[in-house]
Order: sequence, then structure tokens, then C-alpha cells
Amino acid sequence: MLYMFCANGVEECEALITVDMLRRAGIDVTTVGVEGKTVKGAHGIDFTADALLCEITENDINSSDGVILPGGGVGTQTLADNSDVVRYTKASMDNGKLVCAICAAPSVLGRHGMLKGKKATCYPGFEGYLEECEYTGQSVNVCGNVITAKGMGCAIDFSAAIIRYFKGEEVSRKILGEIMYAGE
Amino acid sequence: MLYMFCANGVEECEALITVDMLRRAGIDVTTVGVEGKTVKGAHGIDFTADALLCEITENDINSSDGVILPGGGVGTQTLADNSDVVRYTKASMDNGKLVCAICAAPSVLGRHGMLKGKKATCYPGFEGYLEECEYTGQSVNVCGNVITAKGMGCAIDFSAAIIRYFKGEEVSRKILGEIMYAGE
Repeated sequence: MLYMFCANGVEECEALITVDMLRRAGIDVTTVGVEGKTVKGAHGIDFTADALLCEITENDINSSDGVILPGGGVGTQTLADNSDVVRYTKASMDNGKLVCAICAAPSVLGRHGMLKGKKATCYPGFEGYLEECEYTGQSVNVCGNVITAKGMGCAIDFSAAIIRYFKGEEVSRKILGEIMYAGE
Repeated sequence: MLYMFCANGVEECEALITVDMLRRAGIDVTTVGVEGKTVKGAHGIDFTADALLCEITENDINSSDGVILPGGGVGTQTLADNSDVVRYTKASMDNGKLVCAICAAPSVLGRHGMLKGKKATCYPGFEGYLEECEYTGQSVNVCGNVITAKGMGCAIDFSAAIIRYFKGEEVSRKILGEIMYAGE
């Protein structure tokens, strides 16, 4: 199980492309509403979270496969400011679980000292938060248990990297083929 | 204004990537729930439609810029069987408004005789419904006022083609740059 933290102002498709792709690959992912069950996206799309942040426990995180932080300016700021989100993300990082962040959200990792000695990427303008790591500027960056990506247009490749991490290259390519993706 | 008809079982991201992209480009799009305000997607993602099908009138359609049909097997079947969706899509086609369909959804156009003399594409396995037109097999196909695409992995290019149709190449490229899309 992966937990994806979704705050209001999230870039909807960074969250939902990833959920869609992972579920196609048979990887369990639970969207967790930070402020409520209905998540209000940055482009006027409201979606229903699978769970509420207050329902998630330390135990859930410790027995999970990791966490995913989608971007969007306002949503990312809320994630960075939420002590439970930060604590759960740090716990995942410390336990060697997968930690994924896309667009503005890698800044959450950088701001809370989770990227030391890592390579990472993010949306242009957020590199300042990644000073402690090696910023690569790649569309998608896989560095050990940390997967980061640059923006919504990289969300399919970001998801494919997560699928590859858990299920291998063949399953990843199968899903990319199934959705008729030519961009890989 | 464009109307996007969303039935339960819709491929969520074919719908929502398109909504996200069009809104980024300043193009108005209203998601219309065919069976209710909460649309239940094919991969367990529920989202809130902007309007209900029963709230839309012939007048709304006649004064709109066109319609969009997202795919997903079950959702597409519901669209094809819904007399209002078919009537509104035909009206848009007859009035030279933009008609867009992705994945399985071009079959709705083919099944109801809307593709005669056109070129179109669709998800593999649905070509049988496109016999009356020239099936191109392209990722995205623009033919006059009809834009079709092959699957979820083409949704960004599909959206970019719609943006190009209304706002031109420059705006389309601007949005693709903004989302960090490398696949164009």
C-alpha cells in the first residue's frame, strides 16, 4: 500500500494520473485527504479521497510501501506545513520506503531535510528548496528510494517509474502500451 | 463553452487531463454527469461533475462550442446508449461545432452515423465501429471539426489539439511547456 497525501489546491492530474496508472499495474494506492474527504483541485476538479489524514496512523505508515506527494502550488504549501504529512514522509524515508514527489512537492522533502546526498528534480522555480541535494533537472529522477518528477506532463513517466520500482520493467512497459503512450 | 459527458466507468484521466489542460488555456469546459453529480471512474476515482445531464438544454448545446466524449469501456457504452448524449453530440456535429472523442468513445460517433467521410482514430479493438470513416490509427486525429484520440496516454496531445483548434499553436505549445511535457 502506498499513501498519497492530497491537499486542496493539488494539481489534480499529478495525483490522479498516478493513482490510475498504479491501479492499472495492481499496486494499491490510497488517496488521503489532508483537509477533508473532498479534495478541491487547482483547476476546479473536486475528487473524493479514499481516506482522511486523521484516520491514518503511524502503524499504517510503518506497514506501508511508502508515500506520494503530488504538486500544485497551494497543495504543496499545505503538505509542507502539515506536521503529520511531514512526520509520515520522514518515517517512510528513514525506513527506506519509497518516497515520491512531483512538480512543486519535492520542495517538501527539501524543506524538511530529507534529500541530503540524494539526486532529485522539481518544477522550475522550486530548485532553491533542493539545495542540499543534487538537482538534476530531469523529467523524472530515480535515486534509491526517492522518485521525483518535474510536472504534470511527466506524470505518466513518474508513474511508470513507480511501477518499475515495484513490478519491474516489463509490467511498466505493458501499462504504457495499454494506455497507448508514445512518449516513453 | 465545451460540454464533456461523463458516465460511470469513464477513464478518469482521459476526462480530467483534458479538463485540466483546457482550463489552463482559458477554455471553458463543463463536466456533465450522466448518471449523477458524483462520477465513478473505472479506476476507483470518484469526481464531482460541474452539472447534471438533466440540467443541460438543447439551447445550451446550440450556444456551446462543442462536446467531448471521454472513453473507458463501461462509460462509453452508457454514452452510446443515452439518447440525450447522442442527440446533443449529433446537434454539435450538424452545426459544425467541435466534437471530440478519445479511446473507446469514437465508437459512439461511429455507431450513430456521425463519421461518414471523416478520418478518425480510436482504441484498438473499437475500429469495427469506425467502418464508415477512414480509420487512421494515429495517436490523435484532427479532421475538420472532429478530434479523436487513441487512449489515456494520448490525452495530453488530444487536449493540446483542442487548445490548438480554439487558441492556435502558440498557446498550445505554451501550455505543453508549462506542464513540462516532453512528448509532443
